[in-house]
Amino acid sequence: MAAEVVLGIDIGGTFTKIGLVDRGGSIHYEDEISTRAYGTIEAFIRALHAHLMQSLEEIETSFTLLGIGVGAPNGNYYEGTIEHAPNLAWKGKIEFVKLMEDQFHLPVLVTNDANAAALGEMLFGDARGLKNFVMITLGTGLGSGLVVNGEIVYGHDGFAGELGHVLVYDHGRQCGCGKRGCLEAYVSATGIKRTVYELLAEENMDSDFRKISFSELNPRVITTLAEKGDPIASLAFERTGYLLGRALADTVAHISPSRIFIFGGLAKAGKWIIEPAKRSMEDHLMAIYRDKIDIVPSALLEKNIAVLGAAALIWKRLDDKFSG
Amino acid sequence: MAAEVVLGIDIGGTFTKIGLVDRGGSIHYEDEISTRAYGTIEAFIRALHAHLMQSLEEIETSFTLLGIGVGAPNGNYYEGTIEHAPNLAWKGKIEFVKLMEDQFHLPVLVTNDANAAALGEMLFGDARGLKNFVMITLGTGLGSGLVVNGEIVYGHDGFAGELGHVLVYDHGRQCGCGKRGCLEAYVSATGIKRTVYELLAEENMDSDFRKISFSELNPRVITTLAEKGDPIASLAFERTGYLLGRALADTVAHISPSRIFIFGGLAKAGKWIIEPAKRSMEDHLMAIYRDKIDIVPSALLEKNIAVLGAAALIWKRLDDKFSG
Repeated sequence: MAAEVVLGIDIGGTFTKIGLVDRGGSIHYEDEISTRAYGTIEAFIRALHAHLMQSLEEIETSFTLLGIGVGAPNGNYYEGTIEHAPNLAWKGKIEFVKLMEDQFHLPVLVTNDANAAALGEMLFGDARGLKNFVMITLGTGLGSGLVVNGEIVYGHDGFAGELGHVLVYDHGRQCGCGKRGCLEAYVSATGIKRTVYELLAEENMDSDFRKISFSELNPRVITTLAEKGDPIASLAFERTGYLLGRALADTVAHISPSRIFIFGGLAKAGKWIIEPAKRSMEDHLMAIYRDKIDIVPSALLEKNIAVLGAAALIWKRLDDKFSG
Repeated sequence: MAAEVVLGIDIGGTFTKIGLVDRGGSIHYEDEISTRAYGTIEAFIRALHAHLMQSLEEIETSFTLLGIGVGAPNGNYYEGTIEHAPNLAWKGKIEFVKLMEDQFHLPVLVTNDANAAALGEMLFGDARGLKNFVMITLGTGLGSGLVVNGEIVYGHDGFAGELGHVLVYDHGRQCGCGKRGCLEAYVSATGIKRTVYELLAEENMDSDFRKISFSELNPRVITTLAEKGDPIASLAFERTGYLLGRALADTVAHISPSRIFIFGGLAKAGKWIIEPAKRSMEDHLMAIYRDKIDIVPSALLEKNIAVLGAAALIWKRLDDKFSG
């Protein structure tokens, strides 16, 4: 019998990753195509289809494809659209699900990458069995997926869960979204870089960071220097964790999750970011919430959570159908 | 045929209000007993029962009582408890639902007063048909009930929705919860009073507030003076609305509600609080959320929303049972 699988697609600004994922979360086939090479959404979808068909012919195993789940920047679950995604060449409001279904003749669902990551954790990671949790993705920006009563929070318009844009400081750092003082301007790969250079301006101490340009720096370097005892690196993590924990205390006051997962390049810094975040969150929590909530790295930190999460969109829908 | 009703109970620090509420939201009988007169929870429940039995005998109409819904400070829906409520004489963790069911032999549900208000709006007010909305209660403190996917957000522990305790300013005003800088220390009946006196300290302008002591002042007086053109009164509303709107923008980034209702003494100030709040919320929202979300007074502002909401707990449960 052919193995039942779902096609998970993670659309990023540069590459689009795809994988065939079974209900247990095993990835049977993985590949990627360029996102940037296709100037129109129609050309991209045709290329995706051709690529997949070719690959399926080359694989010996036979699969039954049940549907296609897609994680994309500004993907809207309700509308089936990708709307004004700043990193994609396809402008405006794209009728993505309709175009995909016309090409593939399979059910297609789309959401944003952070919601997909939350679903991946729920179906295949350490959030199995949890009804109320939060996924924070610390990439170039800060994304989030909120789960309440076992369901992703999409909000009335499909755009809920933008914790990267809660306010940290009035008149604070300029954010890519057009506002100032947003959390992701402080807590993200870019945010912690900005904090390193803020500290180089404020403090006099020696630091290897004084030899590295802003453009060269990344979170991996900051973690390496923190491990070597660089004082600017540990101060940068301390400040970043403080603000993350402070913001998460407000999130707890909203939805009281039992656990908070973090994922992404900056999450790989592990204790350097998690310990100050946890300390600051506890300091900012009301008494009724204290000592109940863990901040932990995603169980899928080293796996392709974006593809798994995209596939989980379809698996979740099928689970709900059979259980309801 | 006897009319089917639910007993709604709103437990406040001083009085406990009760009412018999039908599915349409009509209150068939209303009364109150003292909360403070009973030093133990057992004595309070016995008195409540005796009072209700007596009243039911005196009313001509015959009722079928389907259940009892209760709104109480720190009421926990999952546990059926009232836990460490600061304004009540009964200390510790009270097994409230169990004690009530033993006395009344009817299904009993409890939640906090703000969640009850949200349910009241959902079943009997202007939130009918809305799946994602927020209820803010502006009394002595600031309470909130969040609704996501048509359900109250209780969180993993039953304590979700404490928007009164999100952070407004680091090292800000002392809050009753033991923290500093919480929203309710700025936005509530007490919060706006504190702002009036802050303004009397900061500004030199003449104002009728200079003749009123802190203890005498209440939101009604502030509204009256604002209507008379007192500059301190309008500044106080401006500042209070600014912070409410700023905080609500963060709430929108979490759950993207379609509407925000406000209720309570301060909500009666109407445009004085709503206009600056709406302006500030829009200023602080990401572009994708702008011009979509109303801030409006509760439709039940002049009615007994607390009793209606408490009764709605049971009616909602019955609705879900018959529809699921």
